[in-house]
Amino acid sequence: MVRWEPNARGRLEQAAMELYLDRGFEQTTVAEIAKRAGLTERTFFRHFADKREVLFGGGSALGELLVSRVVEAPEPAGPMDAVAGALEAAGEVLQERGEWARRRQTVIAANPELQERELIKLAAFASELAEALRRRGVAEPAASLCAETGIAVFRIAFVNWVEDADQRDLPQFIRESLDDLRAVTAGT
Amino acid sequence: MVRWEPNARGRLEQAAMELYLDRGFEQTTVAEIAKRAGLTERTFFRHFADKREVLFGGGSALGELLVSRVVEAPEPAGPMDAVAGALEAAGEVLQERGEWARRRQTVIAANPELQERELIKLAAFASELAEALRRRGVAEPAASLCAETGIAVFRIAFVNWVEDADQRDLPQFIRESLDDLRAVTAGT
Repeated sequence: MVRWEPNARGRLEQAAMELYLDRGFEQTTVAEIAKRAGLTERTFFRHFADKREVLFGGGSALGELLVSRVVEAPEPAGPMDAVAGALEAAGEVLQERGEWARRRQTVIAANPELQERELIKLAAFASELAEALRRRGVAEPAASLCAETGIAVFRIAFVNWVEDADQRDLPQFIRESLDDLRAVTAGT
Repeated sequence: MVRWEPNARGRLEQAAMELYLDRGFEQTTVAEIAKRAGLTERTFFRHFADKREVLFGGGSALGELLVSRVVEAPEPAGPMDAVAGALEAAGEVLQERGEWARRRQTVIAANPELQERELIKLAAFASELAEALRRRGVAEPAASLCAETGIAVFRIAFVNWVEDADQRDLPQFIRESLDDLRAVTAGT
């Protein structure tokens, strides 16, 4: 029989993040995470495949959000408009989980293996965005260009937002980065 | 005593590529590569750390070329101009090794682990390009935006060039992709 633990997932996330920040991701074990959360390892593995998934589990929801926003963008929107709207929507989600997103970024920045995983996740987002644009009838290479550069803009805006002392909001950073991209591209 | 083998490196590259294409990268051993090249495993390891390095050994030279072209671009060049010039120079190098570059791409496309390695290599190129732009006095986020989107353009142009039946040249694909990027970005 499985005992129901109130907010087990949230407690495990919280405990894992504290340990990753205190000791480093590498040095933290699942046993320690479970103990700190007052739960068993078995409960941990009901929620996460491994300790890395605590950091990357939210990725598929974000990917789905990006795709649905591109697919559902109003018809007259150009491909870069559709991507911009999707990125801002994703930015709002991360903004709401601001403290988590910032701490997660700190953990990832300290570990090359996690950086690689993040890179691979973002590349998957770009592929999914390009596919969503093609479903809107956008031809190649425009679909891939919008998707890949959109994700690059998103990543740069995100890092700047994390480092921002004034705590301006993430969708604003994304809009500014898109404006910057337009300016440097036009300057060629 | 080390026996000198005429063009050992080239023979090993050739043998490795044939085996990777015939049997797959995973299924090929260093012993088989050496044997097919008529050389010993010891000779292989004098030239390459492992069988993956046969595919990625040229990466640092390409990275250095990109950086030097950005650093040495004439003073009035804007950041995206400087990046465009560097990408075209890299495109010319790959163009000269056209058959190798196409076969390498086929091997990488068939293997997720190699795709990840390629992604990490391209991200390193983007970091190096951004650093070279900052040395030219380009501020952030413009430096990172130009570097990251430049590498995205390069990758898309490269894949289109590989798939192109007409065998138009790679620098041309790169110029067209930059034009496309400008068009989609301006359309926002």
